[in-house]
Amino acid sequence: MRTEMVWLNGHVVRRTGASVSVSDRGLLYGDGLFETIRVYRRHAFLLGQHLARLRGSARTIGIPFTGSVQHWRQVFDRLLAANRLEDAAVRLTITRGTAAGLTPPRRPRPTVLIEARRVDPNLPGARARGVAVCLLPFDRGPAFLGRHKTLAYLPAVLGRREARRQRVADGLYVTAHGLVTEATTANLFVCHRDRIRTPRDDVLPGIARRLVLDLARRMGLRVEERPVSRTLLAAASEVFLTGSVAEVLPVRRIDARRIGTGSPGPITRALQQEYTARVNRAVAGR
Amino acid sequence: MRTEMVWLNGHVVRRTGASVSVSDRGLLYGDGLFETIRVYRRHAFLLGQHLARLRGSARTIGIPFTGSVQHWRQVFDRLLAANRLEDAAVRLTITRGTAAGLTPPRRPRPTVLIEARRVDPNLPGARARGVAVCLLPFDRGPAFLGRHKTLAYLPAVLGRREARRQRVADGLYVTAHGLVTEATTANLFVCHRDRIRTPRDDVLPGIARRLVLDLARRMGLRVEERPVSRTLLAAASEVFLTGSVAEVLPVRRIDARRIGTGSPGPITRALQQEYTARVNRAVAGR
Repeated sequence: MRTEMVWLNGHVVRRTGASVSVSDRGLLYGDGLFETIRVYRRHAFLLGQHLARLRGSARTIGIPFTGSVQHWRQVFDRLLAANRLEDAAVRLTITRGTAAGLTPPRRPRPTVLIEARRVDPNLPGARARGVAVCLLPFDRGPAFLGRHKTLAYLPAVLGRREARRQRVADGLYVTAHGLVTEATTANLFVCHRDRIRTPRDDVLPGIARRLVLDLARRMGLRVEERPVSRTLLAAASEVFLTGSVAEVLPVRRIDARRIGTGSPGPITRALQQEYTARVNRAVAGR
Repeated sequence: MRTEMVWLNGHVVRRTGASVSVSDRGLLYGDGLFETIRVYRRHAFLLGQHLARLRGSARTIGIPFTGSVQHWRQVFDRLLAANRLEDAAVRLTITRGTAAGLTPPRRPRPTVLIEARRVDPNLPGARARGVAVCLLPFDRGPAFLGRHKTLAYLPAVLGRREARRQRVADGLYVTAHGLVTEATTANLFVCHRDRIRTPRDDVLPGIARRLVLDLARRMGLRVEERPVSRTLLAAASEVFLTGSVAEVLPVRRIDARRIGTGSPGPITRALQQEYTARVNRAVAGR
């Protein structure tokens, strides 16, 4: 899925040979942030929202990050053109750059890396049929960093590893208090008839999550941003995940339990259609 | 404090120009581990214990790591000789290497990086006088990874940033339940007369911590491995931190509260002497 060219600190370069210093704080301390943005037909979808989230997190942890939406759109265009891609998932990574010692430098010079990858060709099929997931025996991480998409992504790596072991698509984090918060790279939604719930606390404020909440409200569904217990999850008529690349991904099984009929339910399918319509309008509206 | 030469995947190379691929999972996901080992007069102190901890964590998260204590001693010797150093803090970092996607590869080819740095020349003075620290408004991270020294070190970066803002040496993590667990890179000990307590749960199983527990028991002190509440901390007659580089570091102030007389107490000083004696025996015993 990887592509040949990446953007590194202002230049489009070959991935082979593209490197960061061994002193980079992203490598040594996970001292950085990232965003993954879905590009449809060369249109970076909701880029402004992704950049706003990144800017907010960067301000919180003290990494300078500048550049207008227009600027980054042009950078993405260049990178996609260099890779001869029209559709892609683009990951934008910023680190605090190089500096000795744990205490962060007062004037960091960030490392900025942008990678475009092809979107998994199995994704449309998964979206149509739904996926199986497992409950993970652990939580995502420190609550105070839970709202920031930091480079400290080892819990997600281990979650995916566990999911592969169980031969399912993804894992759902479960807190010590029995709350199910989110998947490794997607937010969680559960439906009970016409009521939709998604956790708000200790989860990443997903860009796709926000869009889906908005679409659901416009469709007249009752939307709640409240915690999801294992019990509530078990009683759901529909469950789906949202992510900028996954979009609206139905869950048909959690561990041994089938969700609803085992096929994507009506709310999930309606939201998928609305999501796609929203993408199409954004692409056409350029 | 940084030195010119580093060891990277089998070779001693200049730090300037030494780099890892932009596809390295350590950079992209914090997917790796590290150890910091103190070298005294070319003797890597308790290296066997550091490697055992690293090997255990590597097994848990699924990164292959091999090589005998003897092998790594020789590597350290080469690196220290290249940097013309006899005393150093050596950081050994392993990542899961390069591989596309969050799901870890089945057969990772790890990146191994070793850096030696000079030990902070202010440390002996700090050890003699004690340091001031602050309580942090956050916890270190996911409990299930708390016992592993992972690259997800952003909480520590932010802890040090807060400590600098408050003009103190370090910060102590405080959980949502009001337990004080450890400093950003050191374990916490509190004394109430001849009783010593250090947390055991959700803290890094420090190599220096283990040695100090052992020394304290030999000295006939009453040692408890139990949680430390803010209240208990406030009532302490002595507080100190332990780390492979910091060794036994007295705390003379926490936020606005002076600890004991504000000077290193008798237990702390006795343990410092025993620690140094243990180092000297190890160095002489080669």
